[in-house]
Amino acid sequence: MPINPNADIEITAFRWVPEFAQGVVRDLRARWALEEAGLNYRVRLLGQERPIEYLKEQPFDQVPCFSDGTVSIFETGAILQYIGEKSEALLPRDPQGKYRAIQWTYAALNSVEPALINLLLIDIFFVGEEWAKLRRPGAEDFAKLKLRRISEWLSDKSWLEGDRFTIGDLMMVTTLRFLRHTDLVAQFPNVEAFVKRGEARPAFQQALSDQLATYAENQPQPEGAAA
Amino acid sequence: MPINPNADIEITAFRWVPEFAQGVVRDLRARWALEEAGLNYRVRLLGQERPIEYLKEQPFDQVPCFSDGTVSIFETGAILQYIGEKSEALLPRDPQGKYRAIQWTYAALNSVEPALINLLLIDIFFVGEEWAKLRRPGAEDFAKLKLRRISEWLSDKSWLEGDRFTIGDLMMVTTLRFLRHTDLVAQFPNVEAFVKRGEARPAFQQALSDQLATYAENQPQPEGAAA
Repeated sequence: MPINPNADIEITAFRWVPEFAQGVVRDLRARWALEEAGLNYRVRLLGQERPIEYLKEQPFDQVPCFSDGTVSIFETGAILQYIGEKSEALLPRDPQGKYRAIQWTYAALNSVEPALINLLLIDIFFVGEEWAKLRRPGAEDFAKLKLRRISEWLSDKSWLEGDRFTIGDLMMVTTLRFLRHTDLVAQFPNVEAFVKRGEARPAFQQALSDQLATYAENQPQPEGAAA
Repeated sequence: MPINPNADIEITAFRWVPEFAQGVVRDLRARWALEEAGLNYRVRLLGQERPIEYLKEQPFDQVPCFSDGTVSIFETGAILQYIGEKSEALLPRDPQGKYRAIQWTYAALNSVEPALINLLLIDIFFVGEEWAKLRRPGAEDFAKLKLRRISEWLSDKSWLEGDRFTIGDLMMVTTLRFLRHTDLVAQFPNVEAFVKRGEARPAFQQALSDQLATYAENQPQPEGAAA
């Protein structure tokens, strides 16, 4: 198991998050990539209230940050690329293969994720607000348009660029998981199969299990139930 | 001037867009980077109705696509990185400098842009809709939070990582332009100065001028004013 308190690579993650966020917090992407690459890493856990100095590492107050003694970076896209540079299993070396994979990490984060997160926010954070009720049908249509585009692109391919799994697939699978509270992905069988194919990889299973284990260990106790 | 019909590099762009979009369509990012790198390019113009085959090049039906005979890619983040690999003026060569620049392209596209585009959509596309009116204050607050984070990070630096302009700055400046219909950026003087510093670069001026010239040439004629 790549988690190792003496590893050179460190990522940041949350000690605990509410159930709706468990399994989609973005350190999952870094953990998955590190598992695929077989690189040991350690985790620095943060509470829901981050110390103000954390903004000097991560100006948007998010996780994960990544450091390995050579680079200190944030943003999962950059982290996945950096790990990919160390592992040809995640990032092809020929220019076309490399940049097609990189392009899909941006596509997931910029052309797909905002539409999906918008629906997630409407359904979870803003549920009950009048604007959210009025906006939901249009937001769902836009999310479905993105899924249709991915479905048409994927056609009968296993991965976004064919037979070979890359950081682009890793990013897209984790992005599509933001819709797991809906049945929208299931409306596009080849997209659903693509997500399941990603989730079935042992590296994903290990990464998810490690993320969830931390939350279980740090589950807040109900008031009055203190030891 | 790098526009050259015989260039190896080709990008796609729109023949014409409505005024609110002129100067923020994403081919501006590729043009600006190509100008900074001094690389010749040609432009393949597309109408507002793209041929259905364009989805095979760009599954999300956006511009720009980029090709140079070696790679064919979409997504401005990937395109900027590829151009950056050809020009140290845009992308440092040391691992930390390189990945800090790459990280900022992702930050602009994923941690900043969705909040700004959300406000743009509310103010331009969905103006007059009840949900947009109800949602606007919260959406503006969220956009301002992003600006505050950038302002705190920038402090008195010229560029996001100090003295040196990179693709990360190019991406962030063009992203912040999505708020040009508001006075929000001006509420953060160091962010406004950062945007102006980017816009003052000759390469930006040339890129913008070339994008706008195409729209002016292809301005639709009013009904009944046909030659």
